[in-house]
Amino acid sequence: MSGKILALAGGVGGAKLALGLAHLLPPAELTVAVNTADDFEHLGLSICPDLDTVMYTLAGVANPETGWGRRNETWTVMEALGQIGGETWFRLGDKDLAAHIERTRRLRAGESLSTVMRDLAARLGAKPAIVPMSDDPVRTMVMTTDRGELAFQDWFVRLRCAPAVRSVRFAGAEKAQPHRALTDLDDLRGIVVCPSNPFVSVAPILAVPGVRAALVEAKAPRVAVTPIVGGQAIKGPAAKMLAELGHDVSALGVARYYRDWVDGFVLDAQDAGLAPEIEALGMKVRVADTVMRNDDDKRRLAARVLEFVDELAVSGQHS
Amino acid sequence: MSGKILALAGGVGGAKLALGLAHLLPPAELTVAVNTADDFEHLGLSICPDLDTVMYTLAGVANPETGWGRRNETWTVMEALGQIGGETWFRLGDKDLAAHIERTRRLRAGESLSTVMRDLAARLGAKPAIVPMSDDPVRTMVMTTDRGELAFQDWFVRLRCAPAVRSVRFAGAEKAQPHRALTDLDDLRGIVVCPSNPFVSVAPILAVPGVRAALVEAKAPRVAVTPIVGGQAIKGPAAKMLAELGHDVSALGVARYYRDWVDGFVLDAQDAGLAPEIEALGMKVRVADTVMRNDDDKRRLAARVLEFVDELAVSGQHS
Repeated sequence: MSGKILALAGGVGGAKLALGLAHLLPPAELTVAVNTADDFEHLGLSICPDLDTVMYTLAGVANPETGWGRRNETWTVMEALGQIGGETWFRLGDKDLAAHIERTRRLRAGESLSTVMRDLAARLGAKPAIVPMSDDPVRTMVMTTDRGELAFQDWFVRLRCAPAVRSVRFAGAEKAQPHRALTDLDDLRGIVVCPSNPFVSVAPILAVPGVRAALVEAKAPRVAVTPIVGGQAIKGPAAKMLAELGHDVSALGVARYYRDWVDGFVLDAQDAGLAPEIEALGMKVRVADTVMRNDDDKRRLAARVLEFVDELAVSGQHS
Repeated sequence: MSGKILALAGGVGGAKLALGLAHLLPPAELTVAVNTADDFEHLGLSICPDLDTVMYTLAGVANPETGWGRRNETWTVMEALGQIGGETWFRLGDKDLAAHIERTRRLRAGESLSTVMRDLAARLGAKPAIVPMSDDPVRTMVMTTDRGELAFQDWFVRLRCAPAVRSVRFAGAEKAQPHRALTDLDDLRGIVVCPSNPFVSVAPILAVPGVRAALVEAKAPRVAVTPIVGGQAIKGPAAKMLAELGHDVSALGVARYYRDWVDGFVLDAQDAGLAPEIEALGMKVRVADTVMRNDDDKRRLAARVLEFVDELAVSGQHS
C-alpha cells in the first residue's frame, strides 16, 4: 500500500505507537499530529509536553523509564530553582529545558510553533514529520467537582489528577487554525488514532475547527488503538476520566466515544470478549497485544495496525 | 566609626572588594549598589551579569576560578541548547540559569528588579543589601571604530572586546529612576568606588539622573580603588578602553577620570610613584596591595579602604 499514515497522538502512549510506525515506514510516509492542549506557560517558558514526548521518542533520546523527558537527564536547574524559591512542582530536566528556552525565544520572536518544532525535531534527529494540531494556543481546562475549573497541568501534575472531573473544555479551540496535515487528507493510506487519552489527547485535536469534518470525510481508513486494557489505562487518568465522565470503564467505553468517526478498533487480547459489542457499534475489530513494553512490542503493534488499515482499505469498510 | 558604607560595583573586581567589606562590616552597614547597564535579554531571559556576580560572591557560591557564575557549575542546558541550534556564545551554567529563569518570570509578572534581587540574594544567603542602580533598564552601547554601535555584551563577550571603542553611551539612563540607596546618602560612613571598569561599570551608575549630584553632595568621604595596576587591568578591558578613549593607561588616567567627585584614591603599591601626580589633582592617596587573589587579600584591602575613609572623615578632606 502507498500513501501516508497520519497518526494522532498525545504523549507517552501515542509516542510509543508512533515510534513503532516510524520503525516500519519511510519517514516521508508518516506524519504525527500531536495534541497541544496540554501546553502551558510555566516559569515563563512555553512547555509542550506531548510534542516533546513525541519528538524525544522519535529522536531516540526519550527517557526509557518515564516515557517523557530525555534520557540521561540531570536536574541541576530545578534544584537551584528550588533553592531560590522558584516553583518546582513541574519537573523540567536540564536537557529538556534547552528545548523550552529555545522554543520560547523563537515563539516570542514571532515564529510559528510548527516551524520551531520542525527545526528542533530535525536537530535532535527525529525523522517523520511531527506537527502540532494547531499553531494557535488551545488549552485544556478541567472542570472538577470540588475544585472548580483547573488548567490542565494544574490538575494533571500538581494535583496528580485527584479532583474528580465533571467536564473538559478546550479554551481557544474555536479560534484555532488546524495544521494543514489534519485537513489536507488526500492520498492518505490511513489515519491511526494512537492509544492516547480520548478526552484530553485525542478530543482536543478533533476540537480544532475543520479537523473532525476532514477526518470523517477522508477516504482513508480510520483506526483507533485502545488506551484501555482490562479496564485500566496503561498510563495516566483515562480510566478515571471514563468513570467520572459517565462512560463504561473499558475499551468498549472508548470505542463508543469514537464510534461516529472511527472505522476500526484495535482491542487488546485481554479484552477480546468485547469484540462483538464493539462490532455491534458498526466498527471492525482487530485483536492485538497493545501493551508496548519494548521496541519489538511497538513494532509488532504498528505492523498489526498497518495491516488492519490496509485490510479496511481493500474491503472498503471505511467509507 | 558608624554609619553605612555604600559601595559602587560592577562585576568581578567590584564583587571581590564588596566581599572584603562584607567580611569586616555588619550586614546592615554595607550596601552594594551595582551596575545594571551590562544587563541584557538573551535566550528570552533577563541576564544581570554584575548583580549576579556580586550576589554569588557575597553568598559564597561564586566560581572561584572565573570570579563569575557559580561554583561546581554544570553546563548541561548549554550543551543541549547547542545541539538544537540555540545560541551558546554567552555561557550560562545550569545553576546560574535558575536565577535567570526565576528573575525573568518575576520581572514579567511585574515585580521590580530590586525586589527580585533582594529575594534571590536572601535565598542564596548573601547578607548585605545588593541593589541595582535602577529598576529601569539602562543599556551600555559601545560605539566602535569599525563595527558601528554594538550592544555591550555583543562587544564584550561575543567579540571579546576586540573592536576599538570610540565612545560609550547608556541607553535609557536619562529616563531611569535611581535606586534610593544611591540618592538618600545621609548618615553614610563612606562611599567606596570598587575596582571596577570606570567606563562601563562605574560611569553608568553615575549616569542615572540624580546619582552624580547626590554623590558629590554627600557628606561622607568618597574613596575609589584603582582597577589599573602597573598600567594593566586586573581583569577586563579597562586598560584597552583607557587607551582607546584617549586617557592615560594608568591609575593616573583613572584618577583624572574620577577627579571631580572622588576625594581619596587607593593606588597599588606597584604604582606608588604616581601618588604625587594624583595628589596634584586634589585627591588624597593611599597606597595598598590592591590585587585580590584570595580572601585574606580582600579583607586586608577592605580594611585599608575603611581606614582611609575614616581618616578622610576626620580630616574633613572630603567636603
